[in-house]
Order: sequence, then C-alpha cells, then structure tokens
Amino acid sequence: MAGNSALDQPLLHQQPPEGAARRFRRCRTAPSSEPPPTDNSSAADAPPKTLFSGGRPSFRLVGLLLAAYLLLGSIAFYLAMDHMSGTRTSRALDALYFCVVTMTTVGYGDLVPASDAAKLLACAFVFAGVAVVGTFLSKAADYLVEKQEALLFRALHAHKQHQGHETRMMVRAMEMNKVRYKLYTAGLLLVVTLVSGTVVLWKVEGMRVVDAFYCVCATVTTLGYGDRSFSSEGGRAFAVAWITVSTVVVALFFLYAAELYTERRQRELARWVLRRRTTNMDLEAADLDGDRRVGAADFVLYKLKELGKISQEEISEFLDEFDKLDADHSGTLSPADLAAAQPTERSLYI
Amino acid sequence: MAGNSALDQPLLHQQPPEGAARRFRRCRTAPSSEPPPTDNSSAADAPPKTLFSGGRPSFRLVGLLLAAYLLLGSIAFYLAMDHMSGTRTSRALDALYFCVVTMTTVGYGDLVPASDAAKLLACAFVFAGVAVVGTFLSKAADYLVEKQEALLFRALHAHKQHQGHETRMMVRAMEMNKVRYKLYTAGLLLVVTLVSGTVVLWKVEGMRVVDAFYCVCATVTTLGYGDRSFSSEGGRAFAVAWITVSTVVVALFFLYAAELYTERRQRELARWVLRRRTTNMDLEAADLDGDRRVGAADFVLYKLKELGKISQEEISEFLDEFDKLDADHSGTLSPADLAAAQPTERSLYI
Repeated sequence: MAGNSALDQPLLHQQPPEGAARRFRRCRTAPSSEPPPTDNSSAADAPPKTLFSGGRPSFRLVGLLLAAYLLLGSIAFYLAMDHMSGTRTSRALDALYFCVVTMTTVGYGDLVPASDAAKLLACAFVFAGVAVVGTFLSKAADYLVEKQEALLFRALHAHKQHQGHETRMMVRAMEMNKVRYKLYTAGLLLVVTLVSGTVVLWKVEGMRVVDAFYCVCATVTTLGYGDRSFSSEGGRAFAVAWITVSTVVVALFFLYAAELYTERRQRELARWVLRRRTTNMDLEAADLDGDRRVGAADFVLYKLKELGKISQEEISEFLDEFDKLDADHSGTLSPADLAAAQPTERSLYI
Repeated sequence: MAGNSALDQPLLHQQPPEGAARRFRRCRTAPSSEPPPTDNSSAADAPPKTLFSGGRPSFRLVGLLLAAYLLLGSIAFYLAMDHMSGTRTSRALDALYFCVVTMTTVGYGDLVPASDAAKLLACAFVFAGVAVVGTFLSKAADYLVEKQEALLFRALHAHKQHQGHETRMMVRAMEMNKVRYKLYTAGLLLVVTLVSGTVVLWKVEGMRVVDAFYCVCATVTTLGYGDRSFSSEGGRAFAVAWITVSTVVVALFFLYAAELYTERRQRELARWVLRRRTTNMDLEAADLDGDRRVGAADFVLYKLKELGKISQEEISEFLDEFDKLDADHSGTLSPADLAAAQPTERSLYI
C-alpha cells in the first residue's frame, strides 16, 4: 500500500489515517492496472490556490491583517491623541493601547475620544476590529486543529505495528479525545492568562487582589466596565499583548466547550443511526442506481444521508458527473469509459 | 412517490427537496417489494429525544435559559444595589439594566460594583452571560435557517410542475441565495437597530446626534467605553431590550458574512473536485468493495471524501455495519440478509 507517503500528502483532501486505510484490505489485493498516472499533478488539475488551507486565508495572512490593523490604528490614534481624554502615559503606547482595547471590544473607557472626528474614527475601528478578531479567532482554531491532526498522523505512523481493528479503535479513541484535549489546552491557557493578569495588576498597577481579579474577569470577557484598568506605562505595555491573547483564549475556550457538546450529541445520533434496525424499505431507498442491488457504497451513502452529513443535492451533483463519465451506460466506470468521456484536451472542462 | 408527505416530515434526516428526489428516476420505477413497514415508528427505533432539533437544545429551552439568567441576575443585583456606585434611576430597572449590560459584555461602567462581594458576583455573571448569549446566538442562527428551509420546501411544492433539471437548477439557485438572503436580512435589522438606537439616545437621552451614533456603535459591538450611555429611566427601559437585540443582530451579521465567504470558497473547491479529470488511479481508489466495479455510489462516496465532506472513519463505521448485515456475504443486501442478521428481538442491538 501507499504507506509512508500518506504522511507527506496535504491534509486538505482528508486522506484517511493509515489505520483506517487498511480497512480496504479487499481493495488492496486488486492488482494495479496501470502505473501511477502523473497527469494528476499537472497545473491544470491543481485545486485553486486560495483553497489549499481549507477554504480560508492562511494563518500568516490573517496575522498580517492583524498587524496592519494595529499599525494603522496606532498611527491614526497617535495623530488623534490631542482629541482624546482620560488617563495618559506616553503618546505612542496610549495609541496602541487604545487600539487594542477598541479592537477586542474591551472598551474600558479610561481613554476616550473627545472630538466628533475621533469618535467616528473609533466607530470605524471597532467594526473593523470585530471583523479582524473574528477572522483571527477562526483561523487560530483551524491552526490548532491542523497542528493536532499532524500530531495524530505522526503518532499513528509510530504505531504502525498495531493493525486492523486495534488501530481503528485507537484512531477513534484519539479522535474522540481530540476535542476534549483542545478544551483542556484552552482551559490551561485560560488559567495562565487569568493568573498572569491578576499578578501584573496587583504588583505593577498596585491594585488589591480582588480588584485585580475583577479587572481581569472584566477584561478577558471583553466586558470592560473601566472602573479598574491599566493606567501605568508598564501596565499598558503588558496589557497590549495580554488583552489580545486573553480575549482570544477565552473565546476559544467557549468555542471548544460548545464543540465538545455538539460532538457528543452527534455521536449519540450516529450511534442511533448505526444501531437502528434496517428495514426492507431502507433497502429500497438505499438502492441509488436502481439495479435492485444494495452494495456497500449504496448502504454507506444512505446512512450518511440519514445522519445529515451529506445532502441529496451534493449526491445529485456527483451522480450527474458519474452519468457523464459512464460513456457506455453500463452503470460502472471503466478505464475505457474515462478515455471516451474525457478527451485529452481539457477544453471541455474549463 | 411519497410526494406531498415529504413536507410533513421533520427536517432532521435531511429529506431531499422534492425536485432533487426525482433525480432517482431509475429507483422510482422499481416496484415496491413490500408494503411500507410500520416497525420503523416503534418506540425502540425513535432517535434520542434531545437530538430532534439537530443536536442542540431547542430554541424555546434557550429562551427559557436567557429568561432565567435575567431574572436571577436582576434579583441578585437588586439585592446588591447598595453595593453599586454610579448613575442610578429606579432600583429594579437599574438591576435589570446592569444585568443586560454585563450579560452582553457591553460593560459601560456607568454603574459598577463597589464592594468585593458585588465584584465577584459580577465576575460570575459575566462568564455565565457569555455562555448564555453564545448559546442563544447559535440557536437563533439555527432557527432562522430552519424557518428558511421550511419556506424553501413550500416554494418547491408550489412549483412542482417544473421537473427534472429545471427544478434542480432552481433548488440550487435558492440554496445559493440563502446565505446571501440571510446576510441581507441581518443587514436590514442592523440598520433598523442602529437608527432606532440613535434616535432614542438623541431624543430621550438628549445627546447630540454624533454622540448618539457613537454610543450606538460602541454598544452594538459590545465595546461600551461608557463615556456615553443610557442614564434616564426611559432610556434604560429601552436599553434593556435594545442592547440584547442589537448585539445579537450585529453578531449574526458578522456570522453570515463569514458564512457567505466560506460558502463561496467551498463552492470553488467543489467545482474543482467536480471538474478534475478522473484518472484510472481514481477508479481504483474509488472501488470501495473491491469487486473491481466502480458503481455510481462508489463514485459519489469517493468524490465526497475528496471534498472533505466525510471522513474515512465514518465510512468504515458503516461498512462494518454493512458486513454485519450482509449475512450471506454476497456483497449486496437482500431482505433475506436483513432477516438473518437482525433477529426479531432487539436484545443484540442494545
């Protein structure tokens, strides 16, 4: 089997984990009817570039967007600092601090725009900030998932000797714990940000411990009453990084908690769909190609549809494609069908 | 065909839209081999109750949760009002107002806890508030989608005369516009909340128009600097409802904008997967049951896997079930297989 090379392939097409791939032992015994084609890697067949990261802009791009926002915001509020009122330290730091407090929607109010122009500037920056932070958050979540999947693949590779059922059970156990592990990670980070924030507000800003904790809670949730905030130069320098990280960490924590809940429910539904008694009526409905035989693939498609994983629309689209490719209308695809249905020039497919 | 009754069925199992169902013309011509079984509706076969709304608690339940939070919060802060400092109107209204301002993380800071106990109470309520609002938001989004899907089904029903390709194209066009339409709806609601908030702050709170607009922007994004806020009794009574609605509307607007973007990207990917040249290597990989024949269902499953819609793990799970049901190991399921593999007592399946 393809074996080790699976690890070098991009995750985009959801290559099956090694162990799961072995499920198709029957398939593997079929002799290869031709050498691996190379046309698959031609430029015309490459998926659209922007899609390589799962349909969203890359993490680096979003990081750049965040940096651009902060740079632009800092410059804008630096220039507008004469139109701001409130607790002041150094002009550049205050501009960056106000930018972060606005972007994350913490909005303490310890530094506020005082002129109409500055107020409208803040309005523009808060809407843009919500979009930037939202994009960054979703990308950060994707990034963590990808990292974890790479780890999973590596772990599976290291345990190649466990084959068949055992490997499959292991994959499933690791998959199941993945969301829980993510939640634990976010929970740990949450504790770290809560403690570090409280300590800095206590030691650097000279707050009482309860006030420091209260200010931390009001900040990480983006509540930001503003009766307690960072007012010293050292505190604000810390706040700039800490607020950005902590608000994202809290959002991730809630996101993962929701994911864990949803996953459990879906597992329950999947178990029900799996264990439900299959009736003769199901057989008839599952007979996708009307040949009065329900093969393995027919059955799997029917169950996945019942599970709500795929829609009839999606199936129809690919069935149309199948009909186009099935040149001799035999109900199965053969290399001869492909050659007849797909002329060498790709002009038909652009 | 089942026809009209499709409208009466729950959406959970993703019943195909009427037009799409007609795609299986070949299947429809197969004579029914038995009367519709009734055992399918037995209690033992019903899906777990909590799952009927797609794996999340129902909208009504979440509404109750929100109401319970506000009631409990209002009582708590009513009792703690002597430990609060800031702009005051009537005690009960202030408690509810503070509760809403905390729950939505707007956090103006025009009314803040002054004692340690009140501060810790606020900390507890803001974390709970984030969870409640998040759940409410996700449920509100689901609810809107369900409403829209029901409309879609009804529209299709009304146009039953357009069959085959035409209906399919219509379904696809409506599906495609669904996200855009949701975004337009949220955008319209956004404008309504922005205007109504500005007018009330201008007329009731007596702010200048720019200040009113500035306060509205700072509120709907949950920024809440707090230099401008609702300080009159009439204003706060309005604010309680307006803040809850407007923050959810803005969040939905951003959510739908992200969904539209993701959907477009996924459509691009789907188009690529659909148009990609199918090679002999693909044929071999798509041969799920190793019978060296790639049927329609094999092809569809292979393409859906390539699209990342389903994972090998999910397929494996149902393949295992198929193997169990295929009593005579013929590679296809027959009523005889089902009878042999599923004894009448369900003891094996619990």
